[in-house]
Amino acid sequence: MDNPRIDEAALARLLDGWCTDARESLHRQLAAALTALISSGELPPGTLLPSERALASTLAVSRGTLVTAYTTLRSLGLLDSRQGSGTRVRGVSQPRLPGSATRLNPLSGTADRSIADLSSAALPGQDWVAEVVGSVSPDDLRRWVRGHGYHPAGLPALRAAIARHCTEDGLVSAPDQVLVTSGSQQALQLIATAMLAPGDEVLVEDPTNWGALDAFRDRGARLRTIPLRDDGVDADVLVRLLRSRRPRLLYLAPTVHNPVGVNLRPALAKVIAGAVAETGTALIEDLSSVDTLFTGPPPPSMATLAPDAAVLSIGSLSKLFWGGLRVGWIRSTVDFVKQLVTYRSSADMGSSVPSQLAALRLLEYVPRARRTRASQLRAGYEWTAELLSTHLPDWEWVEPDGGASLWVRLPEGNALAVAEAARRGGVLITPGSVFSATDGQLDRVRVSFAAGPDTVLEGVQRLAGVWRTRRRLR
Amino acid sequence: MDNPRIDEAALARLLDGWCTDARESLHRQLAAALTALISSGELPPGTLLPSERALASTLAVSRGTLVTAYTTLRSLGLLDSRQGSGTRVRGVSQPRLPGSATRLNPLSGTADRSIADLSSAALPGQDWVAEVVGSVSPDDLRRWVRGHGYHPAGLPALRAAIARHCTEDGLVSAPDQVLVTSGSQQALQLIATAMLAPGDEVLVEDPTNWGALDAFRDRGARLRTIPLRDDGVDADVLVRLLRSRRPRLLYLAPTVHNPVGVNLRPALAKVIAGAVAETGTALIEDLSSVDTLFTGPPPPSMATLAPDAAVLSIGSLSKLFWGGLRVGWIRSTVDFVKQLVTYRSSADMGSSVPSQLAALRLLEYVPRARRTRASQLRAGYEWTAELLSTHLPDWEWVEPDGGASLWVRLPEGNALAVAEAARRGGVLITPGSVFSATDGQLDRVRVSFAAGPDTVLEGVQRLAGVWRTRRRLR
Repeated sequence: MDNPRIDEAALARLLDGWCTDARESLHRQLAAALTALISSGELPPGTLLPSERALASTLAVSRGTLVTAYTTLRSLGLLDSRQGSGTRVRGVSQPRLPGSATRLNPLSGTADRSIADLSSAALPGQDWVAEVVGSVSPDDLRRWVRGHGYHPAGLPALRAAIARHCTEDGLVSAPDQVLVTSGSQQALQLIATAMLAPGDEVLVEDPTNWGALDAFRDRGARLRTIPLRDDGVDADVLVRLLRSRRPRLLYLAPTVHNPVGVNLRPALAKVIAGAVAETGTALIEDLSSVDTLFTGPPPPSMATLAPDAAVLSIGSLSKLFWGGLRVGWIRSTVDFVKQLVTYRSSADMGSSVPSQLAALRLLEYVPRARRTRASQLRAGYEWTAELLSTHLPDWEWVEPDGGASLWVRLPEGNALAVAEAARRGGVLITPGSVFSATDGQLDRVRVSFAAGPDTVLEGVQRLAGVWRTRRRLR
Repeated sequence: MDNPRIDEAALARLLDGWCTDARESLHRQLAAALTALISSGELPPGTLLPSERALASTLAVSRGTLVTAYTTLRSLGLLDSRQGSGTRVRGVSQPRLPGSATRLNPLSGTADRSIADLSSAALPGQDWVAEVVGSVSPDDLRRWVRGHGYHPAGLPALRAAIARHCTEDGLVSAPDQVLVTSGSQQALQLIATAMLAPGDEVLVEDPTNWGALDAFRDRGARLRTIPLRDDGVDADVLVRLLRSRRPRLLYLAPTVHNPVGVNLRPALAKVIAGAVAETGTALIEDLSSVDTLFTGPPPPSMATLAPDAAVLSIGSLSKLFWGGLRVGWIRSTVDFVKQLVTYRSSADMGSSVPSQLAALRLLEYVPRARRTRASQLRAGYEWTAELLSTHLPDWEWVEPDGGASLWVRLPEGNALAVAEAARRGGVLITPGSVFSATDGQLDRVRVSFAAGPDTVLEGVQRLAGVWRTRRRLR
């Protein structure tokens, strides 16, 4: 065997700072920290870990804590123990072609109509969007078709319209501060490509948007998590990590957080904005869900709270109008945007011109579309909450400020197992670990209502059946 | 100074295989190999190199060879020598935000109409494309707008139409073998992301498509080059490198090579296909310029010549119809495509649906559009060749099989300096080094005629003036 091994002293150094959260059990914190080291590649597959006894002694914890942490990781498939040969990292499979690795894509859902899909939170387009998009005419297109069609920064008129849109939402912006992207996911990918080298540290909330985790991991970043509790992100931990770790990037979704659905409280937003400015950290604020707010105008963006900091604000037309346009944006300083444009050329040369022309027209309908979306989503939430309260009274959630899903705490059981049992019972929900950089959130599932009231009714009834069965079996 | 240093023995090991080409001078091969090590990051910025004397002795070459190679690299800005402190790597700047690095983007051209832009080979759309794209109506869109609009693999009908199109060109394909991308550049990015880890070796021709170099470098790949001569790629070197290096990927543009414009000769294509199949190398064949052929049907693709090999064939509608659609594709095995789809989700969730619906319609016009393009391009080539022969009789090129540019050999002078002098003289051409993984091709420039006959006339006249001035100054 020429696999690597790591001794207890070296592992303890890697684990530095694993135990920061007085409100969380030691074995969970340890399991989360080990998972992070495995996910980030610092403990490569095949690595022989120290014995439970040796590591417990070095970390000054009970052997029971170690045993429980290792057992958790074995049950997640991250560790492999064999009699006589110790405990080894099985590791997160690195998808490489040709091979058989698969990525979990919560979006993929199912085409099987007999299954109630409460796993996708992607919204259908508004009815009248087809009219507006289809109104782009040969005359509108002709002047653009006479050119080569590559506009890496976006069509000038669309950049100007998005700048006006941002300004109306309170974030004063000039056209040169806007880069048009193919949706918010590409915005994340471009920033990650431009800013991250392998090993760079990125602070993310736990839970967070899985698409962001994907983008950062693709660049080989090391992810460090900040706990997000029901009352908001842990600003103390966040500020301490900003000061002590000086990470390359901080990623936050301050408005209608994905998957939790809540807004960052204004007082915390100010504290974080101050720390970002003070430490010079580059901040990505993902505002792509702002159009799913149930009520009221969007809260002030972090870019307005920290006007001198390096903030990249991400927006999108997908939630308000239609994802099929693939139109989103990055709003930042003129210099940041200029540099990102070169990466955009390298990624795909620019966005679809017909989609950009359609987006330009759709932006005239923002206030009307927001009113419609808000009432649709609020009704969807109330219907789903009512059904869950009736059929699954011991499932809990914090009422969201927007979005198309509920972030549910299970009273017991592992969310991965519950989601798998649900799937066999004909309903798809997303286990919390998908949204966790450390494969944590094992007591949470995301239940979406984007698929409409009938599907939600059917889905919740099936979930209740699955849950009763599990209860009986215990 | 705590910068790294490398001694002559270690550097000689890194340079292993630098001297493989009996037809090329030693100092050029050495300069190219050192440039490759600097570009790939194996010699990071700041590294102190061994003295010319010590390295010459270890490599068993004359000191003159070393002096010339180091001088070349200094003139390219890659090395820095100071009296008393030795020779250090200045390095290729790694663009990182916030910073001031810039990437050379030959596409960017200029908006200044007083400048004759012969640097961009991107073609305008055909006149009637606006009619077809603008004919996508609200009725066409309605059923798609009722869904969320995310189709990472592409709309099923478009995948089927592209499969038929490939089949008509001789590459028998099923819809599941097609992944719709946002142009051929995204196809390259997706493959690079899915297949390459930092340090993986990729074989590329020298010169080659700069967009491919960008995609591979973004993943931290090490690029190894195969010389492309006027009579085609050096198949002996290629086959030897496939067998000895077992690279992760081989990238070729067998039909209308970018920037050279020639087709791979059928006899060489067969030899290479055999070696690819024999060694199990994954091959990217970039067929995105196939629609710029001056005459005749496309030659057989490598995927048909090596039916059992791991081939990823890249196509695009940009050259034939319009780049503003951002519709291209990857054609490969069903399994390859399935895996690439997960990366596509992570990149940007899928292509613009309005553009895909337009592409579906445009594919009905392929034969007509090819006839028009071929006659336009052939006329453009003849006009440009005539002007160059008249005004710059000592500039040479091999007649291309297609495309919108000439790959010109300068009788003397460094192409970077010539391109810069041309820019000052009011005409943009692209220096050959942009297309070289080793910053070579210093005696070549690419002269494009995509901007139309008047611009070409103006541009060539200005080039002739610049060239006469340089001649007089010598």
